[in-house]
Amino acid sequence: MEKTTVRERLQALREEMGKRNFAAYIVPTEDFHGSEYVGAHFKAREYLSGFTGSAGTLLVLKESAALWTDGRYFLQAEAQLKDSGITLMKSGEPDVPTLAEYLVKTLAKGARVGFDGRTVTGAFVEKLQSKTAEKQFTFRGKEDLADLVWKERPPLSAEPVWELPAAYAGMTREEKLSKVREKMAEEGADALLVTDLTESAWLLNLRGSDVKNTPVFLAFMLLTKTRALLCAQKAAFSETVCKELAEVGVSLLPYESIADLVAALPPGQRLLVDETKVSYRLLKAVSKGVERINRPSPIALMKAVKTEREIAHMRSAHVKDGVAVTKFLCWLKSRAAQEEITEISAAARLEEFRKEREGYLGPSFDPIVAYGAHGAIVHYEATPETDIKIEPKGFCLVDTGGHYSEGTTDVTRTIALGKLTAEEKRAYTLVLKGHLRLMAAKFPEGVSGRNLDAIARGPLWEQGLDYRHGTGHGVGYLLSVHEGPQNIRWKAGRDKAVPLAVGMIFTNEPGYYEEGKYGIRHENLMLVIMGEKTAYGQFLQLEPLTMAPFDREAIEVSLLTKEELGLLNTYHQMVYETLEPQFEGEELDWLKEVTAAL
Amino acid sequence: MEKTTVRERLQALREEMGKRNFAAYIVPTEDFHGSEYVGAHFKAREYLSGFTGSAGTLLVLKESAALWTDGRYFLQAEAQLKDSGITLMKSGEPDVPTLAEYLVKTLAKGARVGFDGRTVTGAFVEKLQSKTAEKQFTFRGKEDLADLVWKERPPLSAEPVWELPAAYAGMTREEKLSKVREKMAEEGADALLVTDLTESAWLLNLRGSDVKNTPVFLAFMLLTKTRALLCAQKAAFSETVCKELAEVGVSLLPYESIADLVAALPPGQRLLVDETKVSYRLLKAVSKGVERINRPSPIALMKAVKTEREIAHMRSAHVKDGVAVTKFLCWLKSRAAQEEITEISAAARLEEFRKEREGYLGPSFDPIVAYGAHGAIVHYEATPETDIKIEPKGFCLVDTGGHYSEGTTDVTRTIALGKLTAEEKRAYTLVLKGHLRLMAAKFPEGVSGRNLDAIARGPLWEQGLDYRHGTGHGVGYLLSVHEGPQNIRWKAGRDKAVPLAVGMIFTNEPGYYEEGKYGIRHENLMLVIMGEKTAYGQFLQLEPLTMAPFDREAIEVSLLTKEELGLLNTYHQMVYETLEPQFEGEELDWLKEVTAAL
Repeated sequence: MEKTTVRERLQALREEMGKRNFAAYIVPTEDFHGSEYVGAHFKAREYLSGFTGSAGTLLVLKESAALWTDGRYFLQAEAQLKDSGITLMKSGEPDVPTLAEYLVKTLAKGARVGFDGRTVTGAFVEKLQSKTAEKQFTFRGKEDLADLVWKERPPLSAEPVWELPAAYAGMTREEKLSKVREKMAEEGADALLVTDLTESAWLLNLRGSDVKNTPVFLAFMLLTKTRALLCAQKAAFSETVCKELAEVGVSLLPYESIADLVAALPPGQRLLVDETKVSYRLLKAVSKGVERINRPSPIALMKAVKTEREIAHMRSAHVKDGVAVTKFLCWLKSRAAQEEITEISAAARLEEFRKEREGYLGPSFDPIVAYGAHGAIVHYEATPETDIKIEPKGFCLVDTGGHYSEGTTDVTRTIALGKLTAEEKRAYTLVLKGHLRLMAAKFPEGVSGRNLDAIARGPLWEQGLDYRHGTGHGVGYLLSVHEGPQNIRWKAGRDKAVPLAVGMIFTNEPGYYEEGKYGIRHENLMLVIMGEKTAYGQFLQLEPLTMAPFDREAIEVSLLTKEELGLLNTYHQMVYETLEPQFEGEELDWLKEVTAAL
Repeated sequence: MEKTTVRERLQALREEMGKRNFAAYIVPTEDFHGSEYVGAHFKAREYLSGFTGSAGTLLVLKESAALWTDGRYFLQAEAQLKDSGITLMKSGEPDVPTLAEYLVKTLAKGARVGFDGRTVTGAFVEKLQSKTAEKQFTFRGKEDLADLVWKERPPLSAEPVWELPAAYAGMTREEKLSKVREKMAEEGADALLVTDLTESAWLLNLRGSDVKNTPVFLAFMLLTKTRALLCAQKAAFSETVCKELAEVGVSLLPYESIADLVAALPPGQRLLVDETKVSYRLLKAVSKGVERINRPSPIALMKAVKTEREIAHMRSAHVKDGVAVTKFLCWLKSRAAQEEITEISAAARLEEFRKEREGYLGPSFDPIVAYGAHGAIVHYEATPETDIKIEPKGFCLVDTGGHYSEGTTDVTRTIALGKLTAEEKRAYTLVLKGHLRLMAAKFPEGVSGRNLDAIARGPLWEQGLDYRHGTGHGVGYLLSVHEGPQNIRWKAGRDKAVPLAVGMIFTNEPGYYEEGKYGIRHENLMLVIMGEKTAYGQFLQLEPLTMAPFDREAIEVSLLTKEELGLLNTYHQMVYETLEPQFEGEELDWLKEVTAAL
């Protein structure tokens, strides 16, 4: 344990800022790869501010400091920033300036603004530059000042890299490399810079443990027509892996060497690089003569479309996960009235159920077990301070997922723990209607999640209700539980909506949240499968992968149409038939009861 | 009547081509404004080829000629091109080259290709240039060769321009000019080039009769911060109108002077111009020093959002039109078995019903009365050659619309003329389900037609069925019956999908087409109105403007959900209550019967 306080740490940082004549220094949350979760080494913002949330940007000035974070973390940040001297900036609240606005307001013309250029994207800096243009700031991204003041900083993680056998991946490294090079050729690119950790892991059929909840390893790749340069930590690679990589022409180089490799690209070459994802430092390293093609990496779409092997394994992973989740549901429903169960202990119990399954590797994200009013906090994660007892009444929202050798799961069930009010049942059922309608959707090729989101939201919209999150995200195969490029969102994003394609997997997770009262979410993974081919083209449909009952005690059957009731009963019958061989005794009786036709 | 043949006309054109050393000359269908319909003066392609369809491009080479048109016109073009020596190119059919591919294949390197640069867009020429880059053609757009050979060419239409009183427009010219200038300022533009005829008509609260089915007049406008230059035909303007225009600072200049005005824009100015709509000639006229902002015209969105006055008048126009259409339905349903009625005579009868309504000005598009198998031809328009008798069996699809002083209508009803098969009733009902579901949609602000189209198509998609056209288009107020920027289409287009906003009007027209058998389409106009405001934002909903019964004899009630049946009955009750005061005797009895609850 370091004994220094946040105030002392900031003071040390300010000394380094002074030496460089920096009027401001920005410390974001990201690692060098834009990962959703970051390793201990990368938690400079947490070290310098004391704020442990997963999103936030710290700005240190000569005499003051401020931290921007979003609504999920207002309470937590307020508590953790107390006595730090750091002002909390509630992003999105009225009258709260953005980082750029604050810099314009606070700093003198021509001031020097520093940051570690490896932890921000090129697009971020470009936007900051344009929004502060009037002040003509100088931006300096070459040095990591946090490193100079953080004496006992944990080293970069270099956990052993392990192989995902081709039997799981369904495609060899060689096949993948060759397919990616085909795509590069289509885009007219001579080289591709891969910075997303899930992309190099997918491409090389390798996995690691350098990042929480995501089995990836720290690495950059620079791919050309003839060479495949992997910049990673040698210590993490066994001799066998090194040999196998060499066999398919992949050279292992030091992790830090990526900037030099990028800088060495000869003029006239065309480099495919996603400027919204690659770091400022690497983007700056590209020499002027190199033409940048600013497009999404072709690997994103390729890994989103699962191979037949991956699909087969995902189905088995979901049977395993279904067993664990269903046993947990049975346990919680029957014990909550008798035992002292809290959000944290319930999450631990579910983790045990999962650990009993063969091939379970660990959680795919931090578990959300949110009882009562906590359910209305969309990204709630119980801490010892917030943890509460689960009472035999109201709703408990449980959103968790796991990695298995056979794939990745993400499932939400909302559990009734006693008699519900009519309003609660109505809300539960409206969300379920949307979930079922999306599950039953059939649509021609070319249709995207942009076109389908209104189907899931329809029953709520009809009542003037809604939920403030997307309806679905892609799910990686033993990679990040959140992956693109497909999603189910009605709002237009930066990129063109990507059509759903056979082999894609996404979550179907409409919700409804009554602040201060409860939260409801129903989430199954959906696999896009081939539907019928007619005169109107190839139709696609959806197969639910997740196998766990919805809570019949929470359903107001009279609100379901005949079709919706049919969908629910069919799904429950499938859950029963799939899980039944692995259940016995009281648990089996319970499963039979809760999946019986309504 | 000119006695020359198409072959002679082409020969005369080739002589002019020879004088200029042109290897090819392109004659498109468009006028100088990209109008959907064009006046007689602009029908050079028809004059030179004999083909009268509304879409097609003629290419004349030294020894041959070819005409590209789409599936709607294959039969007609084949007949009309017979003996002309012109080869029919069926666009979109396998192995049929595009115009660019054909030019690359046929012409020598560096060949000179001519066209009238006023009749093609800048974007068209740019695309042609890039698709034929390997052949390094020279493109020449300065001369209209058709004009040199078309001796008895009708002059430019210059029908009297008339005023749309502010009581109808709901906004004065001054208000509109000032709002457009605000938008120009937001875009950082010093000038705006307006070439779309409906945009200048809207902006000036003027209407005309220079274009079929669209009450507009030939005009360009160049708008700057201080000046409003209207380039139009002086002869079409009364003294009163000229005086009123002068009062709000609008100067009337010759129609042809637009190119010089554009060329005179001083360097350093920023010109807002939609390069996908403005002609090649005008785009070339912009001097190099002028910065072009290539964006949709802000007028498009402004005129799509109707004023309260326009909305009130649109409602009355739809009552009038509903009376005419409903009387027609009653007439056709009762007479088809007894009288000799053909598609053309039925359309004429409907036009008479409309003419009986006060304030009726004329059709808003060429009427579609398509009996039996003709209904499956989506843009079918009966000609004396195709006209058939309407028999007392099967479906007759009637898609027509009118302009009234109070606004514009567009309505489709599919009429059962005898006992239907179960398949026909099922198809009719599936399309009706989609229509009713979209009509009932409620959604938060921000949602676009891209998000909603799947709602209308859902019942068909579920069965592997579909229709090959959009679900809806915007409708102008006494302007073009087809207007943007909003629409109801799931496919992504060139531009970002525009959110639906209160005051927008669009068609809700799903369909289903059995080739060789029948076509079904149900079309009502929908007005976007304010819904409830909740914690989730401002919701919007839809009000059907069109007032005419659907055909209860064609509905398979067992296929409707309880909700859908409720929507249908409510709509029919509204139709009855709205039209009843204007019906009497047998017609009233009939109206009561066909709108009674099912």
